[in-house]
Amino acid sequence: MKNYLLGVDFGSDSVRCLVVNAADGEEVATAVRYYPRWRKGLYCDPAENRYRQHPLDYIESLEGAICEALATAGADVAAAVRGIAVDTTASTPVLVNREGVPLALLAEYAERPDAMFVLWKDHTAVEEAEAINRTAAVWHTNYTQFCGGAYSSEWVWAKVLHCLRHSPELVESAYSWTELCDWVGAMLAGDTAPESIKRGRCVAGHKAMWNEAWGGLPERAFLEAVDPLLGAFSEHLYDKTYTCGTRIGTLCAEWAARLGLSEDVAIGVGAVDCHTGAVGAGVEEGVLVKVIGTSTCDITVVDGEKIGAKSVRGICGQVDGSVLPDYVGIEAGQSAFGDIYAWFRRVMEWPLRYVAAADESLFDRIIPALTAEAEQLPLTDKDPVVVDWFNGRRSPDEDPRATGSISAMTLATSAPGIFKALVEGTAFGSRAIAERLVEEGVSFDKIYAVGGISKKSRFVMQTLCDVLQRPVSVVRTEQACALGAAMFASVAAGIYPDVATAQRAMQSGFSEEYLPNAERKEIYDKLYERYKTAGR
Amino acid sequence: MKNYLLGVDFGSDSVRCLVVNAADGEEVATAVRYYPRWRKGLYCDPAENRYRQHPLDYIESLEGAICEALATAGADVAAAVRGIAVDTTASTPVLVNREGVPLALLAEYAERPDAMFVLWKDHTAVEEAEAINRTAAVWHTNYTQFCGGAYSSEWVWAKVLHCLRHSPELVESAYSWTELCDWVGAMLAGDTAPESIKRGRCVAGHKAMWNEAWGGLPERAFLEAVDPLLGAFSEHLYDKTYTCGTRIGTLCAEWAARLGLSEDVAIGVGAVDCHTGAVGAGVEEGVLVKVIGTSTCDITVVDGEKIGAKSVRGICGQVDGSVLPDYVGIEAGQSAFGDIYAWFRRVMEWPLRYVAAADESLFDRIIPALTAEAEQLPLTDKDPVVVDWFNGRRSPDEDPRATGSISAMTLATSAPGIFKALVEGTAFGSRAIAERLVEEGVSFDKIYAVGGISKKSRFVMQTLCDVLQRPVSVVRTEQACALGAAMFASVAAGIYPDVATAQRAMQSGFSEEYLPNAERKEIYDKLYERYKTAGR
Repeated sequence: MKNYLLGVDFGSDSVRCLVVNAADGEEVATAVRYYPRWRKGLYCDPAENRYRQHPLDYIESLEGAICEALATAGADVAAAVRGIAVDTTASTPVLVNREGVPLALLAEYAERPDAMFVLWKDHTAVEEAEAINRTAAVWHTNYTQFCGGAYSSEWVWAKVLHCLRHSPELVESAYSWTELCDWVGAMLAGDTAPESIKRGRCVAGHKAMWNEAWGGLPERAFLEAVDPLLGAFSEHLYDKTYTCGTRIGTLCAEWAARLGLSEDVAIGVGAVDCHTGAVGAGVEEGVLVKVIGTSTCDITVVDGEKIGAKSVRGICGQVDGSVLPDYVGIEAGQSAFGDIYAWFRRVMEWPLRYVAAADESLFDRIIPALTAEAEQLPLTDKDPVVVDWFNGRRSPDEDPRATGSISAMTLATSAPGIFKALVEGTAFGSRAIAERLVEEGVSFDKIYAVGGISKKSRFVMQTLCDVLQRPVSVVRTEQACALGAAMFASVAAGIYPDVATAQRAMQSGFSEEYLPNAERKEIYDKLYERYKTAGR
Repeated sequence: MKNYLLGVDFGSDSVRCLVVNAADGEEVATAVRYYPRWRKGLYCDPAENRYRQHPLDYIESLEGAICEALATAGADVAAAVRGIAVDTTASTPVLVNREGVPLALLAEYAERPDAMFVLWKDHTAVEEAEAINRTAAVWHTNYTQFCGGAYSSEWVWAKVLHCLRHSPELVESAYSWTELCDWVGAMLAGDTAPESIKRGRCVAGHKAMWNEAWGGLPERAFLEAVDPLLGAFSEHLYDKTYTCGTRIGTLCAEWAARLGLSEDVAIGVGAVDCHTGAVGAGVEEGVLVKVIGTSTCDITVVDGEKIGAKSVRGICGQVDGSVLPDYVGIEAGQSAFGDIYAWFRRVMEWPLRYVAAADESLFDRIIPALTAEAEQLPLTDKDPVVVDWFNGRRSPDEDPRATGSISAMTLATSAPGIFKALVEGTAFGSRAIAERLVEEGVSFDKIYAVGGISKKSRFVMQTLCDVLQRPVSVVRTEQACALGAAMFASVAAGIYPDVATAQRAMQSGFSEEYLPNAERKEIYDKLYERYKTAGR
């Protein structure tokens, strides 16, 4: 008997459904749906770093993507689907009412950005994060101990507080909040009541300061000390969390009908996309998985016995069981990576748009043309140096107000020279994370790369490898996140006894291995010293 | 009887001849000739900052420009020309033989860049300047006292040493050296022998460390301590220098014939372009003249009694009589100003050239289009900050190895936003000079601007004015340098008794006055603090 699994990956712009053969990880069908309101730019204000997504965007796209993928796979496959699990961006929370309905699904708040999901990259809550950090700094329990000593404006407590402060009329209806990755599974299972949702440890631990060490979420007194608006949530949230692979239920009748699946399909607990990506890529002890896209997520796992109660300084997350059930998951990341290349592409688009009135179809040539020239440039220790904090700094040492820079420029600096420096700057940002992990006793001897950039740019990957002076293996699957979710679904469905077994059975292998060019070490070491100075 | 004067201004790319009515400064004719070999890029290597000009470029262009200007003015005017004086870029020296012939005019060295004039902006002599500074730092006489404590790679001793070190075959023929501004006048007078040239104090004092305080040029032992190659020059140079307005002779028969002028025409001592520009603009005590073009030259004069033996810290030149005969001339400057905008234009040209294959005629729209958008941008204290040392730093505190940077960038930073920051960065560079002058007791209550940028960009000038928080008056003449040279020629010809009288008679007045916007003071003060930090 064949068994199939659905891994559903909610990205920043679209949701993808991957249909996987449980026996060997074969990817038999896939389908993507872009969020329609988001595509129109609704509810967002990039100048203010405000990025909101309407719950209907998720619901409509989820149904569309699953139905299309199943139609492609065929009826036999659809009938053999045993499990489903989702991963999503995070922290992407929403305020919900007593029934767990996101407030923007209520008619009166349908157009209110503060009643919608607050996308991971929304940076409107900087002041609220600072308020949390001020309180945490003087609290008897050190709640930021496992998130690098600084709570981020990208995370749930800051975001829900920001929404409440800026839309006081929501306060009465805002009974609780939920993360997107928890809400989707609960919705599929037919019960989104805040008290019943089985929350994933992954998102809870990394974003909500949940930890067994202090008995769950931060205590009510702490939340109230930050702002009384947060206190009331305490009674409507959770103490317990669930590691990945846990079964939270089965498809409810409504969603089984909408998707054309059996009500027996098991639903796995939801997780954060880069964590499922790490699992899909094959994370284990000694492996650092880099999910490289618009930003990066750097994930590894360590034996809890080895690390003990020690917290990793300046790294944004460290949670027991957050990635693989029996290990401490370590999460770091760069707030912008491919986003920096996209930024420079926009700068380069400017003369095409406003001077030449060029056809927009030309714009796609910018990055390839810059790459072709940048690859030919000599590498010298006098080259321009970029600090990569164009979207703030996530790790090491969280600082959402940090900014990017380009130094050591001369009148001879060219557009491809700037692009080369931007690529090197993002690689230096990766090196800063890798060095901090090693300094803090989190060692690894393999780096696996997934995400769009890892497949799209040999230049970026070779530069990264040369700057890190470590081999980098690119994982074959283009859908590591969805594949990881499918692995979790396989455990939730009882096909495999644990995630490690599912990983071994369903792994995709590698499409490419980059080896460091030793001749570049000395110069990159020098430029990296300048990166550290410039970024002080 | 009418009297006319010729002011001849050798710029970086071309020479201009201005025919001026001595009575009132009326500009009756003008003509320009571009240097033909330079235009083809011969003898230069921008990647190495090597910029050389062939003496034939000057000779041919000089004759062409004067003849055309006189043809335009008419025979009556030509017959009434009483004096001529030249100004040139500086330090733009050349190695010469025993007869004072630039070595590149000898057949065997005709194609040797090291035998040609080394243009002011040539930066090949960085190591030689450092050798001079190392020796100066431990010498009993402090020869760099009046050039801000640091000898520049843009100046004659470093440049001639560089040429000798890199072309040892020139050593035997290299009997002496001369600056372009001294050589042109001597050639017109018919005697370029190194011992007979009447050297201008302006260029000698600012570029060759000539000072009466130590009896002229640095002593032979000093030069030999820097490098024995320099020692031999000592016997073939000069002790005495001449202030502007001095008559060095009259036109020799050959040049009188070539130009169609009388042999009675007086020749004034040559000077540095920005110094004649300052004089043409109306410099006097309390007036800072800013010559704003690709780079800036900031010039003022102070009463020698007031300043006494004090040297102005970190300012590149301070020479008694260098600008106006009875005052100490103070010279500072930014190594790049308009050149930075030209740099960004080249960056913006890149996608037009290599992505859109756009018509080059479009490129001239880049700066106007950037300006139009930059003017509309709000000013905030979080804006990107540019440090303007893209071509090294001239003042305050000479450092040819200093580089430019752009900091405080985010993913929202746009091309016009970068341009705005570049304009502000150049204005901050001007402010750093102005503040240093004031700190060092060189006060001024008026700023007069001349040079291409002062006429071409209202946006740049208003930004400069807002950053300085001082009014800035734009001098009407487009040819302040040539007009200043003509003023010197009037004194050399005996028409006016001194330069101040010539200035009053021949001044052009102002075309524009910019007033500071007080509302921008607070934010620009903050951004300027960040400029100072970023440039540390």
